[in-house]
Amino acid sequence: MAATEAPATTRRPTLDDLNLAPGKKARLYDLLYNHGVGNGTLLILPIDHGLEHGPRDFLSNPGAADPTFQFELALQGGYNAIACQIGFAEKYFPGYAGRVPLVLKINGKTNVPSDDDAHSPLNASVEDAVRLGAHAIGYTMYVGSPQQSRHFEDFRRVRQDAERYGIPILMWSYPRGSAIEAKGGRDCLYAVDYAARVAMELGADIVKLNVPEKGEKDALMPQKYRDLEWDYADGARRVTRSAQNTLVLFSGGSKVSDEDLLEKGRLVMEGGATGLIFGRNMWQRPMDEALQVTAKVKSLFEDYGV
Amino acid sequence: MAATEAPATTRRPTLDDLNLAPGKKARLYDLLYNHGVGNGTLLILPIDHGLEHGPRDFLSNPGAADPTFQFELALQGGYNAIACQIGFAEKYFPGYAGRVPLVLKINGKTNVPSDDDAHSPLNASVEDAVRLGAHAIGYTMYVGSPQQSRHFEDFRRVRQDAERYGIPILMWSYPRGSAIEAKGGRDCLYAVDYAARVAMELGADIVKLNVPEKGEKDALMPQKYRDLEWDYADGARRVTRSAQNTLVLFSGGSKVSDEDLLEKGRLVMEGGATGLIFGRNMWQRPMDEALQVTAKVKSLFEDYGV
Amino acid sequence: MAATEAPATTRRPTLDDLNLAPGKKARLYDLLYNHGVGNGTLLILPIDHGLEHGPRDFLSNPGAADPTFQFELALQGGYNAIACQIGFAEKYFPGYAGRVPLVLKINGKTNVPSDDDAHSPLNASVEDAVRLGAHAIGYTMYVGSPQQSRHFEDFRRVRQDAERYGIPILMWSYPRGSAIEAKGGRDCLYAVDYAARVAMELGADIVKLNVPEKGEKDALMPQKYRDLEWDYADGARRVTRSAQNTLVLFSGGSKVSDEDLLEKGRLVMEGGATGLIFGRNMWQRPMDEALQVTAKVKSLFEDYGV
Amino acid sequence: MAATEAPATTRRPTLDDLNLAPGKKARLYDLLYNHGVGNGTLLILPIDHGLEHGPRDFLSNPGAADPTFQFELALQGGYNAIACQIGFAEKYFPGYAGRVPLVLKINGKTNVPSDDDAHSPLNASVEDAVRLGAHAIGYTMYVGSPQQSRHFEDFRRVRQDAERYGIPILMWSYPRGSAIEAKGGRDCLYAVDYAARVAMELGADIVKLNVPEKGEKDALMPQKYRDLEWDYADGARRVTRSAQNTLVLFSGGSKVSDEDLLEKGRLVMEGGATGLIFGRNMWQRPMDEALQVTAKVKSLFEDYGV
Amino acid sequence: MAATEAPATTRRPTLDDLNLAPGKKARLYDLLYNHGVGNGTLLILPIDHGLEHGPRDFLSNPGAADPTFQFELALQGGYNAIACQIGFAEKYFPGYAGRVPLVLKINGKTNVPSDDDAHSPLNASVEDAVRLGAHAIGYTMYVGSPQQSRHFEDFRRVRQDAERYGIPILMWSYPRGSAIEAKGGRDCLYAVDYAARVAMELGADIVKLNVPEKGEKDALMPQKYRDLEWDYADGARRVTRSAQNTLVLFSGGSKVSDEDLLEKGRLVMEGGATGLIFGRNMWQRPMDEALQVTAKVKSLFEDYGV
Repeated sequence: MAATEAPATTRRPTLDDLNLAPGKKARLYDLLYNHGVGNGTLLILPIDHGLEHGPRDFLSNPGAADPTFQFELALQGGYNAIACQIGFAEKYFPGYAGRVPLVLKINGKTNVPSDDDAHSPLNASVEDAVRLGAHAIGYTMYVGSPQQSRHFEDFRRVRQDAERYGIPILMWSYPRGSAIEAKGGRDCLYAVDYAARVAMELGADIVKLNVPEKGEKDALMPQKYRDLEWDYADGARRVTRSAQNTLVLFSGGSKVSDEDLLEKGRLVMEGGATGLIFGRNMWQRPMDEALQVTAKVKSLFEDYGV
Repeated sequence: MAATEAPATTRRPTLDDLNLAPGKKARLYDLLYNHGVGNGTLLILPIDHGLEHGPRDFLSNPGAADPTFQFELALQGGYNAIACQIGFAEKYFPGYAGRVPLVLKINGKTNVPSDDDAHSPLNASVEDAVRLGAHAIGYTMYVGSPQQSRHFEDFRRVRQDAERYGIPILMWSYPRGSAIEAKGGRDCLYAVDYAARVAMELGADIVKLNVPEKGEKDALMPQKYRDLEWDYADGARRVTRSAQNTLVLFSGGSKVSDEDLLEKGRLVMEGGATGLIFGRNMWQRPMDEALQVTAKVKSLFEDYGV
Repeated sequence: MAATEAPATTRRPTLDDLNLAPGKKARLYDLLYNHGVGNGTLLILPIDHGLEHGPRDFLSNPGAADPTFQFELALQGGYNAIACQIGFAEKYFPGYAGRVPLVLKINGKTNVPSDDDAHSPLNASVEDAVRLGAHAIGYTMYVGSPQQSRHFEDFRRVRQDAERYGIPILMWSYPRGSAIEAKGGRDCLYAVDYAARVAMELGADIVKLNVPEKGEKDALMPQKYRDLEWDYADGARRVTRSAQNTLVLFSGGSKVSDEDLLEKGRLVMEGGATGLIFGRNMWQRPMDEALQVTAKVKSLFEDYGV
Repeated sequence: MAATEAPATTRRPTLDDLNLAPGKKARLYDLLYNHGVGNGTLLILPIDHGLEHGPRDFLSNPGAADPTFQFELALQGGYNAIACQIGFAEKYFPGYAGRVPLVLKINGKTNVPSDDDAHSPLNASVEDAVRLGAHAIGYTMYVGSPQQSRHFEDFRRVRQDAERYGIPILMWSYPRGSAIEAKGGRDCLYAVDYAARVAMELGADIVKLNVPEKGEKDALMPQKYRDLEWDYADGARRVTRSAQNTLVLFSGGSKVSDEDLLEKGRLVMEGGATGLIFGRNMWQRPMDEALQVTAKVKSLFEDYGV
Repeated sequence: MAATEAPATTRRPTLDDLNLAPGKKARLYDLLYNHGVGNGTLLILPIDHGLEHGPRDFLSNPGAADPTFQFELALQGGYNAIACQIGFAEKYFPGYAGRVPLVLKINGKTNVPSDDDAHSPLNASVEDAVRLGAHAIGYTMYVGSPQQSRHFEDFRRVRQDAERYGIPILMWSYPRGSAIEAKGGRDCLYAVDYAARVAMELGADIVKLNVPEKGEKDALMPQKYRDLEWDYADGARRVTRSAQNTLVLFSGGSKVSDEDLLEKGRLVMEGGATGLIFGRNMWQRPMDEALQVTAKVKSLFEDYGV
């Protein structure tokens, strides 16, 4: 049995733990306590898939190609915020301003070129977020990519602008690129654990992570990770711990059954997550179904107030 | 039969749907309602082929090498605007200023190097457009190119300048590059549909698209697109829908018969397009012929006012 | 016989045709009418070969290594201007300021690295030209090079600076790079014709071109160019036409016989050129010889006033 | 026996030898004489491993994943300073501000991509350090990397900002990249000696070096280095000498026995070092053990005051 | 016998020939006439080898690793100036300010990576030189490198800053890179002659050259250079002539015998050089020896006042 195990419990950080400047604190407080369940948890509806994956993600529910669908879902479902790109926000947020908080995703790319050398360019600025009245900005970091210098330098400027304007940063911290693939792949425990820590070290306020998965390439991970024994809950707990005083959101990924979704949601919240960020699992269904499962997730959140 | 079909009808967005800042709205309103047919449709005469293709496009109608030809055609034919590069505009627009609205195309390239790694550099700025009294700027985006980071970052700055000055953006959204060629090619439904959505997500006000075509490489498209059953009208309708509240223009491409041109024009207008952008189909003919077909297109537009 | 032929005559643009801002117009008027023959023609003495080719170009006439040689030739021969790099100008122009107009060549390179990926970096700025009292700046564009994005972006900034200060732009528009070599080579009709148009489209006021030549790689040109029938005069006329309202200068290239030089000069002036730019054909000879042939060229120009 | 030997003794520079501007001198004086042992020696606790190596470095002592562990160790152990990245500092330094001096590490990278082409991007700025009240900034230079131009240019701007704000610079000067590997490797005497000198030549105030090691690739070093006879102490003395009036810190590297640690510490202090920078050797143990060995190191420092 | 020979005598330019702005003239005048021999000649002591070659250059005279050695040599030997990097200057120049003029070398690199793609990044700025009270800046240009665009653009900004502040520029003009190696190599007559001219064309005030050498790769030079007959003195004279009104310094390179050094010094001064820049030939010896040979060089200079 391995000598080093994941901690049995993980403390969920409070806003005070983050030592935030006042603008960031005001906006995060509002997001965490005046929206959604209102108890310090976060449920975010991301809809940048039109850029990241293309309209193919809408083919199974054509109505979801219309941004009104997601804004209505966020409004009626009582999400803490919607996360989208600048063009989407410019055209559709005005109709929901004040009613649905906005996380402006300021970088993004298509998935047409290979991810071997992944880089997510800046499509908007922190100033755009301020102008639109967003509660936070979203930034995707491709951890371990051969383009990491470019990514880190982009992020430095974003972080400094966010500091200047008091805008919280939600980092999508994703292991990517040829070097990660050679060390276990984008979803392995080593990779996600590293990504969680990078978000903390570089200054994210909130980090969105995928739950680590066991996979065929696990033997490529560094020895210490190969030696660990872990299950789904351990994985979530471990990476949450590596993020330390950075709030953690886990994503749902592609669509799964409601039972799975809720069970996994419960496990990660147990593991110290602050919330969930569910896109395709929500808007790849008819509105009424989406509202029902949203209500179940929010009900689950009642147990995890801080 | 595929479960997901293109919508039977597509709503054509009105200017109010775009939530434009006042400068953009004023300029677009003037373009849409005070020029051309004047009913909210757009007929644009593009003439950047001297840069994009070289003078070879003028060999079949040598008079068209003289920019006066296109400016006269735009004036006499009553186009909503002419779209051209900075040098062309600096030398010839002064003689038509106030009479022919200008869309200043601010990036462009030659087609001498391979398109595998396509990038369209900035040859002018939004400020140049303001100084010249242009109604809008044009920007070509090579969606999916290995140079997409550079392109997206260029566009971010252009969009922010356009926001600052209230100048509408017409994006030529073109799938290009080696990765697109490996996934169905530049004109396949997958590629054009993705390009339409990218324009919306990144913040174009108007997008120029090619109508998707079936081709030999369709089997390279993602599965969901291979499964779709569609014809010309469906294709136009689908990509228009992916653009959502971005006005759509379709291009004519290389010269075809008048019947084809008008029939295809009718189909795309039915599919929700706001207008057409016809270059070689217009100026690769004698002036009188060009004026006749222009009149026919404008007549067709009478049915599509918004 | 090909259906599309070069025009029988080509109109030579006047300064008014260029729609110049006042600073540019004042400087070009002075250059065209107060210097040289004084009738709207241009004879420029270029001496950037020390940078572009190295001192080897001076080995056949060692005295020409001394910039005083070229300045004296420009002064005594009554050229419209001398064109040189910044270091050359800083050290030698002060002695001729007011007497010999200066075209400050603001970019340039050595020919040591291969031209496959040709790029000509900026060695000086438009501000340097203003400070020195230059009449114009010179800029080399390597049309079709894999580096075209970098070149176009450099030129955009140069053009905007030139606009701001009212400094005319003389573009050396040279097809270069591996892609051009694969489509007929740097001197083929297709390449030079494209280069002429690029200068116009991007905003040059004057363009320096080489006269197109027939060559072994002509079969690599696009079909439409392969189908054309043309001779030396046709070639000059065609590319002049593609430049439209951009004044055209033709270069002499490496040294040829006086008869050839004058006959070719006559043909290109007939074809609509505004003037000639002769370097090695002039200063690779003793001063008295150079002055004699200069006088002959100027005598030829008497017939081409505008 | 080789004609050129390492000097028998090496003088340890005083602050006055560095000719510092007043802001730098004030901050370094405070660091050297008001903290730690207080006699001009330096004991720094680095904790950027979460970024540089990933959380795997915490697996053997899971509590060390919590930055509070290192801050407590620095505080209770009486280190001169802690060195960490911006996100780490933003979240945890506020609780220790005024009690534990901060060296803000302003660049860093993951070790996921290969080091062949190593570059450490800027994740923070000198201004960030000023804002946080840091005593110094840390900068990693990968000496000899194919990316050296980018690194040197980054460092130029950092040095100029540090000059402007009076912030001392502690350079992690590390030989890295494919070319170094071909000349003896990152830890060979040639490489470390060169790295020490680069820090001095480019303007570091303090340099962190690894003690050179003999290795299998020593035969790849330049001849003059192959001819030298040297042991551990000679190596430390030689590279300290190459740094001249730059204060030298040596690192401990991966965890070794306490006896080794102290003996090696004594040897490098004898060789002219100003101090030590021990990370994994300290925080990869329980707190009480870490405090004990810290006390031993500080006791050793009593003999090396300046 | 070749038709074109090197000139029998070469005029040495005076300061007036350079048409310098007043700040440059004041500083150069002071350097040329108030220091060293004081008759318009220049003897510079360069000590950037710690960066360019690493500390291995000090192994034969370990005392030379201490910058005090070179500053003392420059002071006691009465050199016109010392040339060094920013870190070296910051730490040691304060003790000699006012007594030893400083040429601040503002770019430099290690020789760890291959020179195939040589680029010398900026490690300091002209402003740094102004702040330190330097008499001039030094800049290394790798002529013909594949990185020449980057180098030329760096130099443009340096030249403009130097113009703004009136700081003279001493260019180390060195042929380098794979393309030069394919055309005769870095020291061949063609390469050095080209480098001399590039310095003049781009705007150096003083150029440091190596004396051209005959070598095994001479057959790779362009034909015109292969045809020349020349000896050491001819080579120096020819490249001096290509530099025209740029003051020329020749370097000594690696250490040679005193007779050789003085004889070669005499030949290049005869050939029109303004002075010498001797590093390793000076400080790779004990101080008294170095002072003796310095005195001999200065005695030689008595004959070459201007």
